[in-house]
Amino acid sequence: MKITPEEIWSDLLKIREKAPLIHNITNYVVMNITANALLALGASPVMAHAENEVKEMVSLAQALVINIGTLSNHWISSMKKALYKAKDLGVPVVIDPVGAGATNYRTKTVKCLLGIHSPSVIRGNGSEIKSLAGENSNTKGVDSQISAIKAINAAHDLSLNHNCIVSISGKTDYIIKGERKIGIANGHSLMTKVTGLGCTASALTGAFLAINPSAFCAATHAMVIMGIAGEIAAEHARGPGSLQMNFLDALYGLTKEDIKNRIKLVNLI
Amino acid sequence: MKITPEEIWSDLLKIREKAPLIHNITNYVVMNITANALLALGASPVMAHAENEVKEMVSLAQALVINIGTLSNHWISSMKKALYKAKDLGVPVVIDPVGAGATNYRTKTVKCLLGIHSPSVIRGNGSEIKSLAGENSNTKGVDSQISAIKAINAAHDLSLNHNCIVSISGKTDYIIKGERKIGIANGHSLMTKVTGLGCTASALTGAFLAINPSAFCAATHAMVIMGIAGEIAAEHARGPGSLQMNFLDALYGLTKEDIKNRIKLVNLI
Amino acid sequence: MKITPEEIWSDLLKIREKAPLIHNITNYVVMNITANALLALGASPVMAHAENEVKEMVSLAQALVINIGTLSNHWISSMKKALYKAKDLGVPVVIDPVGAGATNYRTKTVKCLLGIHSPSVIRGNGSEIKSLAGENSNTKGVDSQISAIKAINAAHDLSLNHNCIVSISGKTDYIIKGERKIGIANGHSLMTKVTGLGCTASALTGAFLAINPSAFCAATHAMVIMGIAGEIAAEHARGPGSLQMNFLDALYGLTKEDIKNRIKLVNLI
Repeated sequence: MKITPEEIWSDLLKIREKAPLIHNITNYVVMNITANALLALGASPVMAHAENEVKEMVSLAQALVINIGTLSNHWISSMKKALYKAKDLGVPVVIDPVGAGATNYRTKTVKCLLGIHSPSVIRGNGSEIKSLAGENSNTKGVDSQISAIKAINAAHDLSLNHNCIVSISGKTDYIIKGERKIGIANGHSLMTKVTGLGCTASALTGAFLAINPSAFCAATHAMVIMGIAGEIAAEHARGPGSLQMNFLDALYGLTKEDIKNRIKLVNLI
Repeated sequence: MKITPEEIWSDLLKIREKAPLIHNITNYVVMNITANALLALGASPVMAHAENEVKEMVSLAQALVINIGTLSNHWISSMKKALYKAKDLGVPVVIDPVGAGATNYRTKTVKCLLGIHSPSVIRGNGSEIKSLAGENSNTKGVDSQISAIKAINAAHDLSLNHNCIVSISGKTDYIIKGERKIGIANGHSLMTKVTGLGCTASALTGAFLAINPSAFCAATHAMVIMGIAGEIAAEHARGPGSLQMNFLDALYGLTKEDIKNRIKLVNLI
Repeated sequence: MKITPEEIWSDLLKIREKAPLIHNITNYVVMNITANALLALGASPVMAHAENEVKEMVSLAQALVINIGTLSNHWISSMKKALYKAKDLGVPVVIDPVGAGATNYRTKTVKCLLGIHSPSVIRGNGSEIKSLAGENSNTKGVDSQISAIKAINAAHDLSLNHNCIVSISGKTDYIIKGERKIGIANGHSLMTKVTGLGCTASALTGAFLAINPSAFCAATHAMVIMGIAGEIAAEHARGPGSLQMNFLDALYGLTKEDIKNRIKLVNLI
């Protein structure tokens, strides 16, 4: 399927109309901004991590987003339970491997999760994606030390191994499924100075997966929306504080014209 | 007691002067906005959930707010300990049954807490309140699928069974104690696009309980203040991001005239 | 070494250039604002608390910040492990004793941590510092009931006992090392109405420790930057909501002239 402003707008309208329930098992740092971004987009967020309820919550949800940003053993147990349930029910899954490559614990946890069930989308920065493909990644804490473009080969392999989409965020974002690749040159450099926007991209990807059966399109649409909202936000920002606020306002107010006028796709060979 | 702008203003002045300590055992998503809202109102927030210290913290506090938004077993143990201590000491309690009706785990947890001690106020949305009264609630994650008005009968029964106030938030908020009922038509629809404003309403209810011995008045005053601050915030908001920021500014700057000019009570038969 | 605007500016440039990795084991309430403040300053934040990874994360970091704001037993184990590793590797440490004096659990936890390893800096409010020196502190929840100046004697003893810097925040901030003392009269009263700015001061102190070998200078530089960013933020704030946003923008945009024109040091005898 081709990526067009019309299809992106149509998906956005569907999210606003249906308000799909997105179940997030995510990190403490970004829970608030993630929930607010999903609400601003038009989706219904729920954050729930108790082992006793994750299965029930997954069964109510239209997508599951697992983010390992501040993981610990109890949370990993819940992530696994939720993932098994999503696999059983066919609920689409996004995995965000925050900080994979920085510590063994993180890399191993993500590999374990990927072993249970191949998600629809893995979304991370270049370092994280490289580390999952077994390459030296130089992840620095949770920041990427390498550009997204250098992770394209790793993403290619990862997407084939797990039969999933790999979404790499960076100056240009890349959506990869084997030989199929697209780049998105939207966004603004000030976005790297706000914590949790990568995690937010994963959550928004979940919202698009909830209403679009093509994971490639859903992942692409989400990153276009992220980038455009970020650009609009940056235009009136005096720094990262006002960018964060404006980003939620921009997501909420996004129009068809914004998408048409701003979308910057990069077709890759 | 009658609800008047003068009494609400008098309570607000008391909070600003005395800065009562409000002990919150609440969810990860809203801790920051809740603490900031209590500070903006004039109260002193503390977030503490360790089993080893909740009793001591309750004994320092003028009100206890229990919110099950991101619960897990360890947290439930702490909530119980805190509740027993509040019961012993007569510290007023608010329970916010976030997501009750969505999963059995949540519904059961709230019923268990209510079995230990009847709080001064139960504050939730329509779906949550219906689920606690044993009715089918259709809670969708943590969002309400039914309007507050449809939960009035459930709230009536719940308030009598637990000898407490039930505060239902929605387009119109309702404060219920058996036959006594009042509606508050303040607020703004954009508030539903910001996460944690329901939880914030519960926390502010705790602050009013700390300085007003009438739980009915405290619950009503808190919802009037919430609604008016939300309205003022929405007037200059471009979306949910600026609404959230403006809400804290509005709470902080609220005047007697704001209350007098904006209060919209609905007396119910 | 003398404290000068030039030295502070030079440190700020180093942080912006090197983006040191600051490992935070901190509380749920402030994780987002802390991470955003570190990013706005120019540092790289990472929040990680799992027992399985804290040692590895400390070994990647240029500073470790331990904050007990919402502690529980699992977290204390991780704090200890991280602290032992930082001691082994010589990674500079900041300890923020949030709420010490309010409950025994908090006071005991901080004393236990101090027994493992003397940090480079202890940063707290007056009540917290007094409680660590064994004096009656009247900590009210997490707020200070006493002014910073009344804690100077306690800070003097504490700094000698643990051979570290004590940084007390208040209307005037004080940096103490035995007989060496300096006051910083920057900042704005509205900052007390925003949650987590004390915790943010501790995190920023970590960032300055990462690039300045003098803990006294690092602690002082951090508090000057906090205060000046707060002042700039307050000038255009309509309340605590906009102050919080403006603070991040101000940190990000801080210039050499801001420091030169605004710095207010108080030399103490």
